[in-house]
Amino acid sequence: MDPATTARLLITCADRPGIVAAVSNFFYNHGANITALDQHSSDPEGGRFFMRLEFQTPHIDLPHAVLERAFQDMVAGRYAMEWHISYAAQLPRMAVLVSRHEHALLELLWRWSRGKLPAAFSMVISNHPDLRERVESFAIPFHHVAVTPDTKAEAEAEILGLLDGAADVVVLARYMQILSPDFVAAYPNRIINIHHSFLPAFAGADPYKRACERGVKLIGATAHYVTSELDEGPIIEQDVERVSHRFNADELRELGRDIERNVLARAVRWHLENRVIVDGNKTVVFA
Amino acid sequence: MDPATTARLLITCADRPGIVAAVSNFFYNHGANITALDQHSSDPEGGRFFMRLEFQTPHIDLPHAVLERAFQDMVAGRYAMEWHISYAAQLPRMAVLVSRHEHALLELLWRWSRGKLPAAFSMVISNHPDLRERVESFAIPFHHVAVTPDTKAEAEAEILGLLDGAADVVVLARYMQILSPDFVAAYPNRIINIHHSFLPAFAGADPYKRACERGVKLIGATAHYVTSELDEGPIIEQDVERVSHRFNADELRELGRDIERNVLARAVRWHLENRVIVDGNKTVVFA
Amino acid sequence: MDPATTARLLITCADRPGIVAAVSNFFYNHGANITALDQHSSDPEGGRFFMRLEFQTPHIDLPHAVLERAFQDMVAGRYAMEWHISYAAQLPRMAVLVSRHEHALLELLWRWSRGKLPAAFSMVISNHPDLRERVESFAIPFHHVAVTPDTKAEAEAEILGLLDGAADVVVLARYMQILSPDFVAAYPNRIINIHHSFLPAFAGADPYKRACERGVKLIGATAHYVTSELDEGPIIEQDVERVSHRFNADELRELGRDIERNVLARAVRWHLENRVIVDGNKTVVFA
Amino acid sequence: MDPATTARLLITCADRPGIVAAVSNFFYNHGANITALDQHSSDPEGGRFFMRLEFQTPHIDLPHAVLERAFQDMVAGRYAMEWHISYAAQLPRMAVLVSRHEHALLELLWRWSRGKLPAAFSMVISNHPDLRERVESFAIPFHHVAVTPDTKAEAEAEILGLLDGAADVVVLARYMQILSPDFVAAYPNRIINIHHSFLPAFAGADPYKRACERGVKLIGATAHYVTSELDEGPIIEQDVERVSHRFNADELRELGRDIERNVLARAVRWHLENRVIVDGNKTVVFA
Repeated sequence: MDPATTARLLITCADRPGIVAAVSNFFYNHGANITALDQHSSDPEGGRFFMRLEFQTPHIDLPHAVLERAFQDMVAGRYAMEWHISYAAQLPRMAVLVSRHEHALLELLWRWSRGKLPAAFSMVISNHPDLRERVESFAIPFHHVAVTPDTKAEAEAEILGLLDGAADVVVLARYMQILSPDFVAAYPNRIINIHHSFLPAFAGADPYKRACERGVKLIGATAHYVTSELDEGPIIEQDVERVSHRFNADELRELGRDIERNVLARAVRWHLENRVIVDGNKTVVFA
Repeated sequence: MDPATTARLLITCADRPGIVAAVSNFFYNHGANITALDQHSSDPEGGRFFMRLEFQTPHIDLPHAVLERAFQDMVAGRYAMEWHISYAAQLPRMAVLVSRHEHALLELLWRWSRGKLPAAFSMVISNHPDLRERVESFAIPFHHVAVTPDTKAEAEAEILGLLDGAADVVVLARYMQILSPDFVAAYPNRIINIHHSFLPAFAGADPYKRACERGVKLIGATAHYVTSELDEGPIIEQDVERVSHRFNADELRELGRDIERNVLARAVRWHLENRVIVDGNKTVVFA
Repeated sequence: MDPATTARLLITCADRPGIVAAVSNFFYNHGANITALDQHSSDPEGGRFFMRLEFQTPHIDLPHAVLERAFQDMVAGRYAMEWHISYAAQLPRMAVLVSRHEHALLELLWRWSRGKLPAAFSMVISNHPDLRERVESFAIPFHHVAVTPDTKAEAEAEILGLLDGAADVVVLARYMQILSPDFVAAYPNRIINIHHSFLPAFAGADPYKRACERGVKLIGATAHYVTSELDEGPIIEQDVERVSHRFNADELRELGRDIERNVLARAVRWHLENRVIVDGNKTVVFA
Repeated sequence: MDPATTARLLITCADRPGIVAAVSNFFYNHGANITALDQHSSDPEGGRFFMRLEFQTPHIDLPHAVLERAFQDMVAGRYAMEWHISYAAQLPRMAVLVSRHEHALLELLWRWSRGKLPAAFSMVISNHPDLRERVESFAIPFHHVAVTPDTKAEAEAEILGLLDGAADVVVLARYMQILSPDFVAAYPNRIINIHHSFLPAFAGADPYKRACERGVKLIGATAHYVTSELDEGPIIEQDVERVSHRFNADELRELGRDIERNVLARAVRWHLENRVIVDGNKTVVFA
């Protein structure tokens, strides 16, 4: 697929007969070549309908803005759809917040540098200065914004200022600060966090220590959108690895990092490729 | 989904723009309620197109036969589609061939008896009499057809006679006889075998012994359609489990049976639910 | 390994230098052929030590009782060991409690009938009569003990009476009644439960419904020893399967059953083979 | 465990009664604190015996060389053992050979820089100059040794010269040249390769393309010791990931890289921690 000509439509609406026909007809009639179509209905009777359409734009007969207006008038309005078209040529801007642990950040940097994360990597912000050199070696701006209990509000304001106009998605790659509800509200369903446990088990702090004490036989990690309720946002991806009594808390933590970086990288890629639709407190992932 | 009113359309054709629109339009206009749609293109430029459409029939405006003729005339002919509609109310007839190992057969019997394999279970045929009682306790006919090198042709003829008109799909649940090309040709892409290895590794006989000798760290099983080339047919499903130096060949075999029965049960269910399309020597599985 | 001559020693004690040497010396000097040895120390400094020794008895120079007394006098006493020797020729007696869901019970029956669960299967007890025929077809006694809120104490007394002298281990194969602390105390670390979730996530009732609402991407099951604290006992084994937004609660439940039966069967086998040592609220599993 | 005082003994010999007792006795009597002991017998009757003993040295009553001579005289000679003691304080020297693909190398560099690969990373040698900067940013020497069909012998000689006295283990992190038997013979069971398939399936070149053509549902990678028979050496570790018809050969390759780097990193770590013993064409891995 040529990214220069790929576009993706995401739709959410009440499920009703005829939606697929109406949408695919519209795009076909305007010269779009549909290269992928996924749909999901939470319930054929009275459920919600979700759709992802990937299409190629070269032979479309209208400018983008006109096409979008026509889609709203002729299809989306009729079905009361929430919808959005993304053009892969316009890379989404991605900012990453991180504290001291570099593993999740490095995985993102490495995949991005190999062309596997379709984003404009606009900056890394950290409450510690440690990772500056590493980040700048990828030619990505690094900002150190210290956070103390007393300066938290100012720090968040500073971060919001840095992000303003420069981030379509904010990734928390083990950022060990809790964001205020106002911060979260500024990026609804656009802040992705990696939680170092298999949520909802061990929500909160120190999950590996608690997993070790509880004697679990699998440990995991969870990538989710951040909402104002801590660790309760819609889950995008999870994974686990098998462990045994031989693992102490440090060894769980070390293995956990491998899970975290892979789970986060997958979730970020799916988000960037417009594969995730939020449905209340759940996600539909057209992976 | 009410099975009484569920129908499924499978399509294969050359990929061309407009197919999804044409198909979904046709069914929408005739009152079908589309409840699932999956599609795949092997290559947007000059590739093959595959589609599975699940729809509800209550409000369709035409009798089935008329609808199918109309679909051929108005859509399928235009795109040179291979296609078939299955109605879930007409359960596909399933026959199982087995030798002495009961694990794969039992899994099928157990899932079928719980309503998880949508088939009419027409019979079990075995070249050994051992499993008669077990099979008949599920009220399923059991036929013993002995096979020796000298009587192989007669035995196959007898089996084909038993199957005639009574089997839409034939499952080899560890049937330790090689079927002749003529037998295979009678059920193209409708004979499902479970091979007790992770194909193409260890094709042929005695895979667990050879896996043990090779010192592999994972063992697996493969469900595939049977073709005239032994162990080379289209793969439907595979799975593996981790092993170590502690497993001898018998223990690999024992663990392998758990993999085999699950892999076969998944493949059979997908086939029965019309989720598998054969594409040359590969499968498209809309699971 | 010939079960008729296999014995297994489990040891727990404070970790101190010389334990392995003392134990292996003792058994070597008395003619035992050690065929497996596993050990674990929770911490080389001040931790707990766990050991499993499998040995063959034919050339042992003393009767079992004398050997055991000598081991206590010469080794175990010196290190203040908790220890126990099991002789595989004396099969542990296993009773299963079940309600209506048959999947976990059937898996145990099937594996046991194939010789893969080294136990004397003494009985199945259920608070529903439904599974009588299925159980008795395996020539295993079935007891129906109805339980109502009013008769719970009597029912437990009746069950304890049935188990008395007939059960070394009690398996709850989806038994939907909460056992009283007195019942649990009668079989310390000898009641194995299968919980239909990945504990500690979704402890309590209806885990699949709650997993569906929470939108998790993996579901699991947990086999654990029952303690007086509900769902908090030592975990023996866990496993998970990947799910997606396409699974409703019923489909999660159905997939979950496959996980439950495999996880429970593994945990029971490990227990029967003396591979599990309880360490506070955790387990050491020498699998 | 304090690396400064940790030692590890690996033993291979014919299985006979009394080995564990003799070995553990010897080390206990000389003041070694045993912190881990793993053993395996390929067959209690006439099989091979394998053992790994990890112990702490502070209270040992003899200098290392004297202890080793005493062990040979008093224990190892009696049982005709092949054995070796490694002292964790003396880091094994590791050299990596790589071509153009950086993913496997980077994973090793990253884990090594975080202290998770206990080796002295002596050099990276490549037949391409591309990765120099990346390697040198970790302060590790980089050598470019071009290889053409005509200069292969000279190139190998040059590489052997670079390695001489500087490598206890050689890791092929996607080195796309076949090593000559003489080269391999210089480092018996000390060259670790990552093969980009699940061996023995798709041995040889271009495995992802062939896996795609065969329509497999899982792809994998294999870390193994290099022998003079291409792709036939003892397997150390393998892993797989699930794929579907949606993956083209490029996407399989991309996913495969994630498997490769993790499988290789695990195998290298186990080798460095003296957890791998070669048994003919198999390995015993005390992970």
